[in-house]
Amino acid sequence: MQTLEAINNRASLKARLSAREVEQGKILKILDAARLAPSARNMQPWRFIVVRGKEQVETLVSRAFSEGNQVAKDAPIIIVACANPNDDIVRDGKEYYLHDVGMAVENLLLAATELGLATHPMTGVNEDELKRILCIPPEIRFVIATPLAYPVTDSYDEATQERLSERTRKNLDELVYHNEWGKSF
Amino acid sequence: MQTLEAINNRASLKARLSAREVEQGKILKILDAARLAPSARNMQPWRFIVVRGKEQVETLVSRAFSEGNQVAKDAPIIIVACANPNDDIVRDGKEYYLHDVGMAVENLLLAATELGLATHPMTGVNEDELKRILCIPPEIRFVIATPLAYPVTDSYDEATQERLSERTRKNLDELVYHNEWGKSF
Repeated sequence: MQTLEAINNRASLKARLSAREVEQGKILKILDAARLAPSARNMQPWRFIVVRGKEQVETLVSRAFSEGNQVAKDAPIIIVACANPNDDIVRDGKEYYLHDVGMAVENLLLAATELGLATHPMTGVNEDELKRILCIPPEIRFVIATPLAYPVTDSYDEATQERLSERTRKNLDELVYHNEWGKSF
Repeated sequence: MQTLEAINNRASLKARLSAREVEQGKILKILDAARLAPSARNMQPWRFIVVRGKEQVETLVSRAFSEGNQVAKDAPIIIVACANPNDDIVRDGKEYYLHDVGMAVENLLLAATELGLATHPMTGVNEDELKRILCIPPEIRFVIATPLAYPVTDSYDEATQERLSERTRKNLDELVYHNEWGKSF
């Protein structure tokens, strides 16, 4: 899949996830993609916990995820992205670990898309409970979690088609300025 | 270019940028890729200022960029990513606009890679000065800037080869845990 196609086809699927196992080779490719993201001073603040196993996933989702995110329970895998804020720069009050984990997570989502796997980045969790369950040290912050699963339909394209048809995004002229703020591009 | 290849080939180039104009069609494709990123509650906090024109680029870089980032002056275009923190969620003190802009920026970097263009995300700027030059309102935060340019060599691959050969990343076993923090994957 071409990059622009993957960027266009990536969609957040949370319903209709298959319990089918995800091959270890694919998981490694997806994590490797995350690893290759850039970061401020190449500090690579991201850490990932791969939660796998029916019981482990169900415990995590039922106890730590918000009501709207319970569908993640159907996935064979949840990937949790977290970081130590001290492992990145803070500039004028801006904590860049969040930005840099975001770049790594986008790589992960696109790699999954290319490999036919569904994802759905979620922030709605009880962080304290999630950290307790996953034995995450106090200084580490949860950033985002995503199920990683095959869609229940045969093809990723089929499963995402409906989501994509409903996708709403601002137009470029609402987002892009030319040479100064407010000047249309 | 396949997605995993673009993720692998993306490298931060700041030296050896060509002053050659970048086609408007390519700029639009790159911004469109950024636009398609996911965000919390689909709030799409990202805004981009495309700084174009020799004088505009030189003024911005010489006055607002740190010494180490002066090479960006050679680029025909600087893209500045910024956002209003109120246009995204804040959860347990974490300002997700930084994370979500990070996802959009990674799309932008990968799209540029696919289109043969060099980028280099930079955070080292004087934010107040940058905001003055670009007439950015007080409530908007600068997140990141990148030059967008053809490499001076004929092919992106040639220009990135050296950078890639020098690239250092932590190994997956330093970054990934299985089912709980600290447990090797």
